[in-house]
Amino acid sequence: MQKIVDFILELDKLKGVTRKTRPIGLDRYENSAEHSWQIAMLGASLAHLAEAPVDLDRVTAMLLVHDIGEIDTGDTIVYAEGGWEERKRDELAAVTRIFGLLPEPQRERFMELWIEFERSETAESRFANAVDRAMPVLLNLANNGQSWRENGITHERVVRRVAPQIRAGCPALWDYLEARLEEARRSGWFGTG
Amino acid sequence: MQKIVDFILELDKLKGVTRKTRPIGLDRYENSAEHSWQIAMLGASLAHLAEAPVDLDRVTAMLLVHDIGEIDTGDTIVYAEGGWEERKRDELAAVTRIFGLLPEPQRERFMELWIEFERSETAESRFANAVDRAMPVLLNLANNGQSWRENGITHERVVRRVAPQIRAGCPALWDYLEARLEEARRSGWFGTG
Repeated sequence: MQKIVDFILELDKLKGVTRKTRPIGLDRYENSAEHSWQIAMLGASLAHLAEAPVDLDRVTAMLLVHDIGEIDTGDTIVYAEGGWEERKRDELAAVTRIFGLLPEPQRERFMELWIEFERSETAESRFANAVDRAMPVLLNLANNGQSWRENGITHERVVRRVAPQIRAGCPALWDYLEARLEEARRSGWFGTG
Repeated sequence: MQKIVDFILELDKLKGVTRKTRPIGLDRYENSAEHSWQIAMLGASLAHLAEAPVDLDRVTAMLLVHDIGEIDTGDTIVYAEGGWEERKRDELAAVTRIFGLLPEPQRERFMELWIEFERSETAESRFANAVDRAMPVLLNLANNGQSWRENGITHERVVRRVAPQIRAGCPALWDYLEARLEEARRSGWFGTG
């Protein structure tokens, strides 16, 4: 029991990992713990529109664990250029440490879910990646492009960084976002690079 | 698609519903969205110790939706005395409104999960309720009783409010907490009522 308690208290740190998007109407940045909850809910609401039939329970489990490495590495905005290989190596070291707090069965299950999400080879992980990429776009579209403007992110860069994964995992979601992103571009909600 | 987007943006408001417990080491109160993520992880880590065998995926799904009514009602500390019937009526109205934003299949699924959690009659919902009750206790035990002291909550009141549900859903967790709560009492981490 003490191992599980140590693990869950370690997870508390994800509440302090801030992202670049603000919750709608709040004067602070969102954190990776509340983001993980929201994408689990988005996945559960959207699963019938996945590119291929998915086991929703596995999608949910992946979404809940996929950001835990950020406890050691912090969050990196998805539009960052370069550095992704090093970052992924550091995140793997982080989840090895954090899941390593647990007894073996739970440690192995969480590690498998984390690796499946990162590899993005199964229908479930492709859909989960689509959902994860889409959520900050949805928040920005509801926020007049807050994090795009604050970070100088252009329309072209958003499309380049999110379109492949969202289209691969949830084509209907990409069709919706593509049109909304074009409207946002015309409204001047992007940075100028 | 627009219905699902409207729903997920409505859910963003749960990030602004504050509870009485502070994340460890942070100078703010936790919100119900990040709490929902953390208890889903606690459930997944503890399920093998549930009082009866449980379908973990259903436990997870219940834990993710169970606080959504607080978007309209706000959070009430579990140690509040009285007013629970009215509160539950208001939460039912809230989730009826919020899940009502969704197409019918998702609306029905989330509503069923929410009702199952509230009724606490199945093995899954008893375990989920145990996990939900235990999490703020674990945080308080790691925080020198922060929310107990701030809100004048006695040891006796904590035990009375959480022991029945935790014992019913996860006896091993209660055995652990009972001993830790007694240590906390000796350390003076409770309010005086």
